Amino acid sequence: MSTTTNADAATDGPTVEVYDTTLRDGAQQEGMNLSVADKLAIAPLLDELGVGYIEGGWPGAIPKDTEFFARAAKELELRHARFAAFGATCKPGTQPHADPQVRALVDSGAPVVTLVAKSDIRHVERALRTDGAENLRMIAETVRYLREADRDVILDAEHFFDGYRFDADYATAAIRTALDAGARVAVLCDTNGGMLPHWVGEVVAEVRGQVDGLLGIHAHNDTGCAVANTIAAVEAGARHVQGTVNGYGERTGNADLVTVVANLELKLAAPVLAGGGLREASRLSHAISEITNISPYGRQPYVGASAFAHKAGLHASAIRVDPDLYQHVDPVAVGNDMRMLVSDMAGRASIELKGRELGIDLSGRSDVLGRVTERVKDAEAQGYTFDAADASFELLLREELTGTRPTYFGVESWRASVQSLPGHSSITMAEATVKLHTGQGRVVRTGEGNGPVNALDHALREALIDVYPELEEFELIDFKVRILDTMSGTDAVTRVLIETTDGVHTWSTVGVGPDIIEASWEALVDSVVYGLLHAEVAPR
Amino acid sequence: MSTTTNADAATDGPTVEVYDTTLRDGAQQEGMNLSVADKLAIAPLLDELGVGYIEGGWPGAIPKDTEFFARAAKELELRHARFAAFGATCKPGTQPHADPQVRALVDSGAPVVTLVAKSDIRHVERALRTDGAENLRMIAETVRYLREADRDVILDAEHFFDGYRFDADYATAAIRTALDAGARVAVLCDTNGGMLPHWVGEVVAEVRGQVDGLLGIHAHNDTGCAVANTIAAVEAGARHVQGTVNGYGERTGNADLVTVVANLELKLAAPVLAGGGLREASRLSHAISEITNISPYGRQPYVGASAFAHKAGLHASAIRVDPDLYQHVDPVAVGNDMRMLVSDMAGRASIELKGRELGIDLSGRSDVLGRVTERVKDAEAQGYTFDAADASFELLLREELTGTRPTYFGVESWRASVQSLPGHSSITMAEATVKLHTGQGRVVRTGEGNGPVNALDHALREALIDVYPELEEFELIDFKVRILDTMSGTDAVTRVLIETTDGVHTWSTVGVGPDIIEASWEALVDSVVYGLLHAEVAPR
Repeated sequence: MSTTTNADAATDGPTVEVYDTTLRDGAQQEGMNLSVADKLAIAPLLDELGVGYIEGGWPGAIPKDTEFFARAAKELELRHARFAAFGATCKPGTQPHADPQVRALVDSGAPVVTLVAKSDIRHVERALRTDGAENLRMIAETVRYLREADRDVILDAEHFFDGYRFDADYATAAIRTALDAGARVAVLCDTNGGMLPHWVGEVVAEVRGQVDGLLGIHAHNDTGCAVANTIAAVEAGARHVQGTVNGYGERTGNADLVTVVANLELKLAAPVLAGGGLREASRLSHAISEITNISPYGRQPYVGASAFAHKAGLHASAIRVDPDLYQHVDPVAVGNDMRMLVSDMAGRASIELKGRELGIDLSGRSDVLGRVTERVKDAEAQGYTFDAADASFELLLREELTGTRPTYFGVESWRASVQSLPGHSSITMAEATVKLHTGQGRVVRTGEGNGPVNALDHALREALIDVYPELEEFELIDFKVRILDTMSGTDAVTRVLIETTDGVHTWSTVGVGPDIIEASWEALVDSVVYGLLHAEVAPR
Repeated sequence: MSTTTNADAATDGPTVEVYDTTLRDGAQQEGMNLSVADKLAIAPLLDELGVGYIEGGWPGAIPKDTEFFARAAKELELRHARFAAFGATCKPGTQPHADPQVRALVDSGAPVVTLVAKSDIRHVERALRTDGAENLRMIAETVRYLREADRDVILDAEHFFDGYRFDADYATAAIRTALDAGARVAVLCDTNGGMLPHWVGEVVAEVRGQVDGLLGIHAHNDTGCAVANTIAAVEAGARHVQGTVNGYGERTGNADLVTVVANLELKLAAPVLAGGGLREASRLSHAISEITNISPYGRQPYVGASAFAHKAGLHASAIRVDPDLYQHVDPVAVGNDMRMLVSDMAGRASIELKGRELGIDLSGRSDVLGRVTERVKDAEAQGYTFDAADASFELLLREELTGTRPTYFGVESWRASVQSLPGHSSITMAEATVKLHTGQGRVVRTGEGNGPVNALDHALREALIDVYPELEEFELIDFKVRILDTMSGTDAVTRVLIETTDGVHTWSTVGVGPDIIEASWEALVDSVVYGLLHAEVAPR
């Protein structure tokens, strides 16, 4: 039996509901602050992914969330997903219809209401400050009230696993009460994220034997097992999974819903997403991270930029022959790509593959392959790295292929300086001057900036913009510095990686030198040359 | 039963060997390029964590790794860990003693040799291009050869799980052959990372019934289950776990060894680390990420900056009363802090502790503590970090304690410039001028260097050396740069850390600014001031 599973191959696994809580629990992440507009932009992407439920927030408790539900009802048309409003049961000693927080859940208009309730008797007594019986009454009456308002009710049983391990009878009674009152799903929450998979599996299996109704799982990643705990619950009989895109959430985050659904569809043959959304997962995951403004995690399973990136020379030759031997799934199944990284561990095989990826056929060109391999090795010995600088690698490859490096201008000289303002040694200004030659003649330009590299970037653009107005579209979006061989103080070699975009594509270039400015200059020049080359501009 | 487990509470779990492969398999990560000096700096940190084995690299195949083993044998004294050299069995049709790659493993001097071997018959036939019997001969003879050279031999059975599920008999034969020939451990590798925990558990349990000898596990994170797969293997009887610090590695990375050992010690009561190293895990994890120059992942379980960070709201007051209700473990057990929203340093208690460490008694000085806490918070918001810059922190502390910052000279102005030689745009020269005042008068000096920071360092020394000849002894030995908030290109803020020695002591200072030169200037000035202060020099 092969473990490489095609997305379309088997669909005989369990039917599992997918419930996304990116907009509510995910938004608890440190540093995340979603506006109503952000949420309105994310919801259609979740719908496109094909989840069944989108938890939009806590109307009544959070004014922004009240507004979100109102606007979503008017402005969004979802193809697959239904909105869920999150909220709590009525308070001790009160009735649901008299609790404004409960009434706000109905008023939100969301067809689904997810009620959080306590199921750990210690939390009932110490945090809620009431007794077990009163908590059960609150659950039962709130569920009934919402059912009478014709809402589909889901119960999130907070701290369920800790509660069950402390007092199984009470924890079970809490969810049985909800299901008996008309809740359709009881979700077992590992709220503090402390569980391991076999514990989750055991508890879910035991509970399944004791209640009638659909069970769900809500896991956090505090032991690094959120995805595995979710899968273990499904294997033990849970049929509803909650999570957040990219694993956003408080502390270590929630179960990454993207990884969960990929495992369910590709590993357990459970067709859980509507509309074949898994094939769009990489694009949607990255689009959502653009809106949340949280940098994508390169090592994220399935959809990360590195998820199918191979570096080891050892494997590269075999991958070329037989990718199924080295990849657990076909990256196309999640909308990702296999990438070969060029590094000193790599040989000719990975350079040939890399060329293919760049649209340059090197098969049968063993002369070029040999020269490029040598140059990559030499350059890496000097401190260059190409696995994060595709554009610089492509320029090198084209130079060896055609015999000349693509060039758009000649450099006569450049200089950059920084100085403190006299008497204000902590206030500085930077200035740079470049002297270049193009087919239109010699040009000298000076740029200012908040630092010498910034000033050089400005001077370079100033000098070229009249001849190459295409530069207007280019923007520097990332700048990384690494000091190599750091045990020799400021005599060390500096490596700079620059990422540039033209609004559609992005490309990365590398420069190395005895100081950051020289290294940056090299990467800046490569960045401009590569951008012009790919805009199919002829040297002017 | 409570799931909050104290690190010292129970130690009746299984005995498990911990094998770190950060320096070999971790180094396959995209964008990571470790120098020999980096590896020599990381190994003692792994030893301090308390792992049993440190895999240093592949001597013979990678020249840098050959050099690492030679230098490590001379330069490092480990307290707990033993070095392992990684390599392959002899090639088809050859004898181990005639295979230079195998001999290099012995020549490395490492007491442990970890041999990678194929156990999936498809890989034997398609990638190795030989037959099953020949592969078994290669395994047996290479293990025997290394045993005769008195090496402790560990077998890494590559693609074991895929191989076992395709042809269980052959996969089992591969590891049985190794164990029979004298290998002490057979490590079952999920090389492409495609497994789920219950599959791993089933296979390990089955294999355990079929071979005699210690079994190990080596997992990758392609399904987001590397940690859970490792734990599942231990629960099924594996007694040797491999992983990398911070989960570094190719594609989605290896099992994060920090999370694995925390789960083993805190959840399964297995005392796996020597010397109580888990309590230092957060510091060591972050120190290693400084060397690898890979930004720490805030949501990393146990040791991430957000791992015990609670967003104010619903739980805040209850957490203060009863943290055990909301935290799955005590953060102290992994050297982390529940109040991570600011930093380790920013709490009054830790600043008081830090003061005591520096010989400054702050007990009863709540006014100073309050001001220092505020300044640290403000500074960290601007990009400063004091975890790795004790000297800058001490200067700040002394300033708040005495009301004035220690000072040895006044700065009128400074400037630095870099320029290419006319007509040679890739050859540069750097120059810096400083204008300072001491008690002996005004001094203006110019320094040259291979870069602007180097030139500034030279100019600063030149200007002060006559007045403070103590500077003769000071030498810059390390220089680190990090660009913060990198999504704004060259407009980002730069942080510089400088390490200086006087031959006896070393100290670290930090500077932050809009560009590297301004940030470096700040750290250089602090470095000189701190050095003079600790040499008990009076301002002249």
